[in-house]
Amino acid sequence: MLNIGIVGYGNIGKAVELIVTGQPDMKVFAIFTRRPVSQIMPQSDAKVFDYSKISTFTDSIDLLILCGGSATDLPQQAQQLATEFNIVDSYDNHSCIPEYFKKVNEAAKQGGKTAAVSIGWDPGIFSLARTLFDAVLPKGSGATFWGRGVSQGHGDAIRRIPDVLDAVQYTVPKQDAIEAAKEGRAAELKTREKHMRECYVVAKEGADTDEIKRQITTMPAYFADYDTIIYFIDQKQLNEEHKAMPHGGNVFHSGVTGKDNNHSLRLEIKLDSNPEFTASVLVAYARAVARLSKEQKIGAFTILDIPMAYISAKSEAELLQTLV
Amino acid sequence: MLNIGIVGYGNIGKAVELIVTGQPDMKVFAIFTRRPVSQIMPQSDAKVFDYSKISTFTDSIDLLILCGGSATDLPQQAQQLATEFNIVDSYDNHSCIPEYFKKVNEAAKQGGKTAAVSIGWDPGIFSLARTLFDAVLPKGSGATFWGRGVSQGHGDAIRRIPDVLDAVQYTVPKQDAIEAAKEGRAAELKTREKHMRECYVVAKEGADTDEIKRQITTMPAYFADYDTIIYFIDQKQLNEEHKAMPHGGNVFHSGVTGKDNNHSLRLEIKLDSNPEFTASVLVAYARAVARLSKEQKIGAFTILDIPMAYISAKSEAELLQTLV
Repeated sequence: MLNIGIVGYGNIGKAVELIVTGQPDMKVFAIFTRRPVSQIMPQSDAKVFDYSKISTFTDSIDLLILCGGSATDLPQQAQQLATEFNIVDSYDNHSCIPEYFKKVNEAAKQGGKTAAVSIGWDPGIFSLARTLFDAVLPKGSGATFWGRGVSQGHGDAIRRIPDVLDAVQYTVPKQDAIEAAKEGRAAELKTREKHMRECYVVAKEGADTDEIKRQITTMPAYFADYDTIIYFIDQKQLNEEHKAMPHGGNVFHSGVTGKDNNHSLRLEIKLDSNPEFTASVLVAYARAVARLSKEQKIGAFTILDIPMAYISAKSEAELLQTLV
Repeated sequence: MLNIGIVGYGNIGKAVELIVTGQPDMKVFAIFTRRPVSQIMPQSDAKVFDYSKISTFTDSIDLLILCGGSATDLPQQAQQLATEFNIVDSYDNHSCIPEYFKKVNEAAKQGGKTAAVSIGWDPGIFSLARTLFDAVLPKGSGATFWGRGVSQGHGDAIRRIPDVLDAVQYTVPKQDAIEAAKEGRAAELKTREKHMRECYVVAKEGADTDEIKRQITTMPAYFADYDTIIYFIDQKQLNEEHKAMPHGGNVFHSGVTGKDNNHSLRLEIKLDSNPEFTASVLVAYARAVARLSKEQKIGAFTILDIPMAYISAKSEAELLQTLV
């Protein structure tokens, strides 16, 4: 039985608690938070501790699942915690992954610990698909599509605009681009051609909605490179229709062998709850980290470095018989 | 540069030669055959040798790709060759994989060699998908569908019936079953409900076609458990319309987390040429076997035991930057 520690108790932390509770070989031992401990109401019988106390649990916890955000939480926490604990995280800032991996790898090696970084569905399962597809069909091209689904980061960005009370943003793939990817023309697609952004915004009464629109559509990186549709609605409608967290996506790859034989590969996921699915992936890879640690494989690993058998609760014999 | 030896020069052997020739880091060093050497016309500048000479090449060949059939060739060859060479094969007799794995594992360990067995798309890529999907959504059920595509084994079986001159068999998934799998009801599906079999048969002039039909539809394991449609056509039409080897398939998995949140996962492949795609997978895993061997990881491995990074021609830094 693995003793799991959860660091951070937001959407992902709560979902990880739920998923761990359903596993045959692990349990939630403790939740660590930087909020007042009394404000945290666990769904399991896990104890809650202040984050500052975490180093006193190195003997009783087998591994930590880090559930903070990629913007500031994980870059601060992972490097420090990896010197004392085995860890898994879902760091998802794609362009900074090489640097992040390097730092966590050094920390884990220094402490003789094992870390799995950037585990989730993208980066994560989609990284596996992209690498597999590219390796088996190198004469080809691929494209990743996200959505239709809620992007938390984009919703956060809108909520920081003055006079915005609440907001939800859907990332929506464009059908023409999906068709192009299926036909092997993924390499030609530009950012604006692949996805659009659909925003549901609750504005303060009397707010200048044209100014809010302008601020959203011109926001660099988040919206400026996309076609963006904005709907102003009231809080009641937002709560009733847009507070679920569905998501999904596709990795397409098309490649050629021999005399013009074409092959198409596709991984598709459709999720009712983005946090619960991300947590499901984190928990499966927590199992892998425990196994790698037991084999004294120390340092940082991405999803590409971990054999699939390590994440399964099934034995080698059972896998050979039923899933190979 | 890896020196590859190809064992067996049928559809898969020829396709492996083609695919290796397109790789940056390997070349076909030799082809081994049990047919008269003079009958083999390589597509590359590889030399052709009689199979009986293979043991004299242990120093010059980095690994062998075994391209024989699973019925008799591979069970005879793999166990012997794994004591002398690193090998990769596509052994695909699902129910015998545990026993086959055990024998090749013992042979490889005895010889200090590395073997990857049952590499292709099913078993192979589909095994990866089934294991991944099951591990991240254990409260769920999945189903694998094959086709529409040509099953060589079923065509062979029909050709062994008296008065049959030639035959091609397509495995066809049933749309209702695919819909059921998408909706999470895969566990309820019976063999007959999932696939049907479509046969194109060339009979000898004056043959009793009713008797041929009877022999096909009652053939145990191959046809008796399936709805089977049989068309009698002439050799010209068979040659013109049914000699390509397209195939494809889907792995579906549907699972639940939390309070009834449903998630659907799907891997889909569509192939113009089954042998060329199978060869593409074999060649990518040949790269992995060479790396495992270099690290002195000896014994047999399935696709579930091999990290994805090992099959890519890209460096770790490039993978971190572009595909994770």
